[in-house]
Amino acid sequence: MQIVVLAGGVGGSRFVSGVRAAYPDAQLTVIVNTADDVTMHGLRICPDLDTMTYTLGRGIDPERGWGRAGETWRVKEELAAYGLEPTWFGLGDLDLATHLARTQLLAAGLPLSEVTRRITARWLADDPRLILLPMTDDVVETEVAIADPAADGGRRWLHFQEYWVRLRAQPDALAIRRRGIEATRPAAGVAEAIAAADLILIAPSNPVVSIGPILEVPGIRTALRTGNAPVVGFAGILGGAPVLGMAHRLLPAIGVEVDAAAVGRHYGSRAACGVLHLWVMDSADAASAAGLEADGLHVAVTGLIMSSPDATAEFIRLAVKALPSSAL
Amino acid sequence: MQIVVLAGGVGGSRFVSGVRAAYPDAQLTVIVNTADDVTMHGLRICPDLDTMTYTLGRGIDPERGWGRAGETWRVKEELAAYGLEPTWFGLGDLDLATHLARTQLLAAGLPLSEVTRRITARWLADDPRLILLPMTDDVVETEVAIADPAADGGRRWLHFQEYWVRLRAQPDALAIRRRGIEATRPAAGVAEAIAAADLILIAPSNPVVSIGPILEVPGIRTALRTGNAPVVGFAGILGGAPVLGMAHRLLPAIGVEVDAAAVGRHYGSRAACGVLHLWVMDSADAASAAGLEADGLHVAVTGLIMSSPDATAEFIRLAVKALPSSAL
Repeated sequence: MQIVVLAGGVGGSRFVSGVRAAYPDAQLTVIVNTADDVTMHGLRICPDLDTMTYTLGRGIDPERGWGRAGETWRVKEELAAYGLEPTWFGLGDLDLATHLARTQLLAAGLPLSEVTRRITARWLADDPRLILLPMTDDVVETEVAIADPAADGGRRWLHFQEYWVRLRAQPDALAIRRRGIEATRPAAGVAEAIAAADLILIAPSNPVVSIGPILEVPGIRTALRTGNAPVVGFAGILGGAPVLGMAHRLLPAIGVEVDAAAVGRHYGSRAACGVLHLWVMDSADAASAAGLEADGLHVAVTGLIMSSPDATAEFIRLAVKALPSSAL
Repeated sequence: MQIVVLAGGVGGSRFVSGVRAAYPDAQLTVIVNTADDVTMHGLRICPDLDTMTYTLGRGIDPERGWGRAGETWRVKEELAAYGLEPTWFGLGDLDLATHLARTQLLAAGLPLSEVTRRITARWLADDPRLILLPMTDDVVETEVAIADPAADGGRRWLHFQEYWVRLRAQPDALAIRRRGIEATRPAAGVAEAIAAADLILIAPSNPVVSIGPILEVPGIRTALRTGNAPVVGFAGILGGAPVLGMAHRLLPAIGVEVDAAAVGRHYGSRAACGVLHLWVMDSADAASAAGLEADGLHVAVTGLIMSSPDATAEFIRLAVKALPSSAL
């Protein structure tokens, strides 16, 4: 069995741990968001790829949910002593080595997908049927507009990481843009994995800055719609709030309600030219199911709390069983 | 009083500590060798500038004589875990932050002299009359030829750091070359400091790979010879062996005996179109003094062991008093 997952970072990596627990023998390819990548201190940083790698490779800090277990911050403190900005980004010493490895391999001319293969070789050696692919080998950077009366047009564009980490998503996000996305292509292997898949899962990651960019890479949406595999999406919004993270701060910027049903409509049913064969919502949102079904989007309702890989595996198996026969 | 010192790394920085102890109120400009700089893991590393900075800024590891006190090696171990070479270079976490700072400032387009000013601002803030300048803002890299029967012409060229650190200078050095030196110019401020100096001191650093390159930067030798300041050189070879380091492994490659008098002749007297007004040798080499004097090179003999800044200051003051009146 070949499974493809589209995913972001913290929530996405917990979800993939559950997929692996549900299907221990499947060939599992994870297409990871790279639209919140950033260059800091000359280092190329891919937060979602790293969170996914460390989580699946059992190197993650389990309390923070990102970065390395046993991390220290000596280099970062030194950079601050030199007065070099930014100082607000969590650049741990162990994590920094990953960025340094990536930066030098990219500088040597390797595409990000090959760099990722080399980096993950260290972490995922005991699961040779698990492959992490960046959504694209091209550079995309997400920016968020916030109100700034002093700026042209009353708004100022920030790199997503500055909005997310430095400002902790406190100012209202007025708009989102992804610089460079129109010119990207799917990374080597992405379209092939989608075409060969028996099952495609959309993780309950942030719809705006994690899943959104993957679907916007030219070619990926078409590959999903023309492939034979059923596409099952999982809501990351439960009872009107994100189960993890701060998606509620960003959904308004793209005109989508902070609501599981609204996100399902945003991804869209096959009938409505969207990508979903099935949308999976938490029991807290059961009341919305009938309306979605009436609009042609198949829905499954179950508990969606990812309290452990086994708990996650259970709701994934349940959801797959709920796929309408028309999707199989 | 304005003093200029030409210097390399470990020995050079001890010497400069002595110069500062001897002349606490002087404007002191150190022109530092950059010909053993190297790029590793994408980071620009300037070993002599860093050793000088950390020593004068009291951040040096006193036992090793290079690198930072309280150093750790977490990033280096991680890079090795990724299989990234080289693993033989001592890239400490604190030290790495300096390289990362330098690399990003260079990438932003600043010349090395300005980058050095910014880095040393942190370390030398309590001595505003002390300035460190790289010998040049241009890139020079020293290479060493060793025998290799399998290579073209039976010799193979290595970066100096690979010869020095990885091979610990064990193979005979057959030849030395400095890639790029012909095209260099003195860094911003170097020629001006020499022209304005009242006294110029050549540290007892390695004549082949520390002082040699400084004198080879087009314009520096001429500046020394046309300036008004007397030039006093200090022997780093005592009784036929280097007081520090491995100069004895390199002098044969440039055809100079491992002998204080031979190094003095190599730098040359003013009369012989060299740079020296006075050559200072250790008492162990007193027997050679008469021969040098007969050849027109003024010589002072004293103890040259740099056991403390005060001991170093003492022999520097003695040497300056021994300058022939013709040089003043």
